[in-house]
Amino acid sequence: MASSDAASLKENSNWGRWGDDDERGALNLITPEAVLAGLKVPTTGKVYHLGLPVQRDGSAPILFYRNKPQRLTSTNPGDRGMFAAFGADPDVGSNEDVVIMDSHCLSHMDALSHVFAKGSLYNGFSTDTITTTGGTTRCGIDKVGGIAGRAVVLDLPGYFGVDWLEPGQVITSEDLSGAAAARNVDVRSGDILLVRTGYLDYWRSLGSPSNPTEQPGLGFDAVSFIKDHDVAVVGMDNSAIEPYPFDKNVFLGVHIELLVKLGVHLLEHLNLNELAADEVAECFLTIAPVLVPGASGSPINPIAIA
Amino acid sequence: MASSDAASLKENSNWGRWGDDDERGALNLITPEAVLAGLKVPTTGKVYHLGLPVQRDGSAPILFYRNKPQRLTSTNPGDRGMFAAFGADPDVGSNEDVVIMDSHCLSHMDALSHVFAKGSLYNGFSTDTITTTGGTTRCGIDKVGGIAGRAVVLDLPGYFGVDWLEPGQVITSEDLSGAAAARNVDVRSGDILLVRTGYLDYWRSLGSPSNPTEQPGLGFDAVSFIKDHDVAVVGMDNSAIEPYPFDKNVFLGVHIELLVKLGVHLLEHLNLNELAADEVAECFLTIAPVLVPGASGSPINPIAIA
Amino acid sequence: MASSDAASLKENSNWGRWGDDDERGALNLITPEAVLAGLKVPTTGKVYHLGLPVQRDGSAPILFYRNKPQRLTSTNPGDRGMFAAFGADPDVGSNEDVVIMDSHCLSHMDALSHVFAKGSLYNGFSTDTITTTGGTTRCGIDKVGGIAGRAVVLDLPGYFGVDWLEPGQVITSEDLSGAAAARNVDVRSGDILLVRTGYLDYWRSLGSPSNPTEQPGLGFDAVSFIKDHDVAVVGMDNSAIEPYPFDKNVFLGVHIELLVKLGVHLLEHLNLNELAADEVAECFLTIAPVLVPGASGSPINPIAIA
Amino acid sequence: MASSDAASLKENSNWGRWGDDDERGALNLITPEAVLAGLKVPTTGKVYHLGLPVQRDGSAPILFYRNKPQRLTSTNPGDRGMFAAFGADPDVGSNEDVVIMDSHCLSHMDALSHVFAKGSLYNGFSTDTITTTGGTTRCGIDKVGGIAGRAVVLDLPGYFGVDWLEPGQVITSEDLSGAAAARNVDVRSGDILLVRTGYLDYWRSLGSPSNPTEQPGLGFDAVSFIKDHDVAVVGMDNSAIEPYPFDKNVFLGVHIELLVKLGVHLLEHLNLNELAADEVAECFLTIAPVLVPGASGSPINPIAIA
Repeated sequence: MASSDAASLKENSNWGRWGDDDERGALNLITPEAVLAGLKVPTTGKVYHLGLPVQRDGSAPILFYRNKPQRLTSTNPGDRGMFAAFGADPDVGSNEDVVIMDSHCLSHMDALSHVFAKGSLYNGFSTDTITTTGGTTRCGIDKVGGIAGRAVVLDLPGYFGVDWLEPGQVITSEDLSGAAAARNVDVRSGDILLVRTGYLDYWRSLGSPSNPTEQPGLGFDAVSFIKDHDVAVVGMDNSAIEPYPFDKNVFLGVHIELLVKLGVHLLEHLNLNELAADEVAECFLTIAPVLVPGASGSPINPIAIA
Repeated sequence: MASSDAASLKENSNWGRWGDDDERGALNLITPEAVLAGLKVPTTGKVYHLGLPVQRDGSAPILFYRNKPQRLTSTNPGDRGMFAAFGADPDVGSNEDVVIMDSHCLSHMDALSHVFAKGSLYNGFSTDTITTTGGTTRCGIDKVGGIAGRAVVLDLPGYFGVDWLEPGQVITSEDLSGAAAARNVDVRSGDILLVRTGYLDYWRSLGSPSNPTEQPGLGFDAVSFIKDHDVAVVGMDNSAIEPYPFDKNVFLGVHIELLVKLGVHLLEHLNLNELAADEVAECFLTIAPVLVPGASGSPINPIAIA
Repeated sequence: MASSDAASLKENSNWGRWGDDDERGALNLITPEAVLAGLKVPTTGKVYHLGLPVQRDGSAPILFYRNKPQRLTSTNPGDRGMFAAFGADPDVGSNEDVVIMDSHCLSHMDALSHVFAKGSLYNGFSTDTITTTGGTTRCGIDKVGGIAGRAVVLDLPGYFGVDWLEPGQVITSEDLSGAAAARNVDVRSGDILLVRTGYLDYWRSLGSPSNPTEQPGLGFDAVSFIKDHDVAVVGMDNSAIEPYPFDKNVFLGVHIELLVKLGVHLLEHLNLNELAADEVAECFLTIAPVLVPGASGSPINPIAIA
Repeated sequence: MASSDAASLKENSNWGRWGDDDERGALNLITPEAVLAGLKVPTTGKVYHLGLPVQRDGSAPILFYRNKPQRLTSTNPGDRGMFAAFGADPDVGSNEDVVIMDSHCLSHMDALSHVFAKGSLYNGFSTDTITTTGGTTRCGIDKVGGIAGRAVVLDLPGYFGVDWLEPGQVITSEDLSGAAAARNVDVRSGDILLVRTGYLDYWRSLGSPSNPTEQPGLGFDAVSFIKDHDVAVVGMDNSAIEPYPFDKNVFLGVHIELLVKLGVHLLEHLNLNELAADEVAECFLTIAPVLVPGASGSPINPIAIA
């Protein structure tokens, strides 16, 4: 277990709420009933994918210590004859690839093990459970399995009548409840909350620089909205859910509140533009991380149905 | 366009059916109406994920020319102080990974560009559109976006009352229609067809060898079932949908029929055991490939809701 | 064999000079006698290494389609207990890495298979011998083995009394023979020729931009110097031996002359500053590529002894 | 600095011998005079390369937690037209690769930072200097630069008249001095000591299994030979210099003696067969690691001249 220092994190947290061994956090809020209710939301049958193209440039900024994704060809028509030993016709073949990518690059999901504080992960699991060779044995992306449920979409630039929120703008609970009310949509226990800031449009307006710039995000005040509504997952279009510079200058402060204390998984750099353009306020959503044991995140391409 | 040799592939194919520029093939069959109908299928709200753990050993066999996936740690608690320049508390940090993996390894999706014959991909696109540096500009995985629809599950070992089909067994249309009839489920236009052979159980019974062994799969006769029912996607638990040894000894023969001629995307090495154990015959399914431009496949973790 | 078009390349080339099956080209000129003569050159015993640090930024520019090298940790003190099964004391462990890098990035060696023209590699080997999965079966870096011999160092900025040659400057045979004469050093059959342009200093003066800029290099006229002196290997500090823009605007024209026609291996982005600072005009040099079968190049760190 | 526990390592060590900041250890013993003396050793001018081919199978066993090396093609003749924007003739192009490999796989060099004990690296540098993102800031492979000097070759199977030493055989100082005496060769301060066990031949006789098997190596007794003769570097053909099972069952015990206490760099899985076949007892040797800052090892291909 974590150091005694971690005790301060337990206050007002979800630690122990779903058992001392729980590694899925607020995903427990998505009950079969909530799933069935979510399936009833769609009215048009239109399918949206929220993952950005996985390419070196132009999709989203990449933090300095992360690497640009690489796609390499492992086999293609330049391998004529490779399968002759299998009796292959010489003009039949396959195209295949090898992909090298960071778990937290472009559109991705943070596992609960992504951030630690005071020697502790979500639910008080000690950082001593983490190894370099094996990764995280607790709260890793492989514990997520698959997610399906109702999602609420809050398009803040639409709500405020702007192209995008201001760089560094701190989003409050009032902003979230106001945007929900304006669209006449309620947020329920077990919901996935998708919040659009317009950051990717702003970033493209700057010429798509390599590194993240100042950006809007959820501040500490907005955490109470997430907590009070028992939101299961939060997804946004910005780099890190929280604003940069950090709210109250606390490094990863909102990650600590959401991931570590509340056990709320985070989805970052989603493409929410099409949902916003169609004025979708609620939808059915599935999230399917690649289940790499020990990993603390995964590229994702969530599927929304309106 | 492809060579004149490719003309023979056009017969009895879906080439041109959705336009000369179409790169999504039978996915066009999944209309918004079909999606809405699919959403009505679930009755329990139970969520299944069909992706196997992405690990070096024990999930599924890996073909000799492919590589075992690697997870490497890019940052972890061994980086104390790394974020000090950002004002970070020294005991706050993050766990992140780099993953190196083949596009067609373990649970994965074949893009329509995966297999070519006679100089041609699906819809007659020439293999001249393929480069080594850029991959496939036509029919790549990035053209898939996201998939959602009704899925029918045919558990053949359950139907035949065996633990698994025989190595090399060629599955016929009659097998598929028999299994569907036994569960009283019909297959409709735009459906995703999931066929369980029990191969992964058999493979584990052999001690999970590194390389694929002889295995059951869909033969040429079964293709007519797919075609006649206008199935949109086929997913199975074996390595390559088709049997090994290949039906009639035609190398990748069923891939050519399904991918190249009919434009039917394929899902391989899915974990269908839980769906079978729960006797799920139909469900709502989403498939969310990682959208790497130019890639011909992607690891996947389809989400089923029963 | 290559297409008949390739016949024009054979004129004035070294094709066939060391047999029709030769894959080592001008390396054949480094006879045991030349090696023994080279060993007599050093007078100070000072050892120089000519490889730049292999890091993402700041060593040398990287062409747009290549990737920045990555070092990842595979095991470190964060794996306490990993070796307990081997009876390890818990405070004993190891640091290990995984490195991902392009064969032609930073300080590297071009294998003779690196460049092709008219369907042909050096010595008339057809590009049909190349596959995507396997790489080059002819003239690859694995055919180099190891190289040792006498090297002559021509410090052109020193000769011209400038900090660096001009961007785009085309180096001539007269430049090379003048610089050699000024240092009273002759160039002999089987020598390794090291030519310093000062480009890396110029590039650093620009702030070390990511992409290569215009730069000086050997023009077509200088090829005759290489050929007339039967030079075995050419190494320089610039990106591609030849200038950019290319001499006479022929894309990779000097690569075709040296690699494809003469079979002269090339070393690029060497750090020649220390040799120049010490006014070393000749030295003993070894070159030890990593012997990856099928690869067309390798990172290198040549060792010079003055 | 390291914990007080590390004090016990300082006894009988080389810590402090070359200053408290020294990161090169016994490489300091290779003086310019020693280099010049080494250059006089060769008599035939024959050049040997001691690196094994870097391939997935068949070169040498790979420890379970390491990965097989991968070569992937980044550009090849399948990229016709890629360079058209540079004015390239469409039939001119290049072959290039990306290589993914472990720092300690196949023929490689251990940096002094490779092994730690009691919280300490060589010369008392604390393991607190190591980060996961950056690797080792002390005693990494980038501190090696390049190595050149006299090498003595001890062919133990030749000395004992066997094909290979026994699996698990512990090599003693007496074995080393006996083999040297038999060839009438002395070992001097600053020498590189190459010791052949025949292990790779034995391993191939087993069918080249993936994992290392029991093998001969230097025991604790042999350490005194290294220390007494002030050997600068030790290279062998086995997996880890020391035997497996470990001498006296001390996990990495000889690594601790040589790397951590004496600062002697280690070269593993060298191909010493050609030197042995030619009965080379001494030679001039250069070692040129790829200089990746922060890495604790590198693939190598040492060049020997007899």
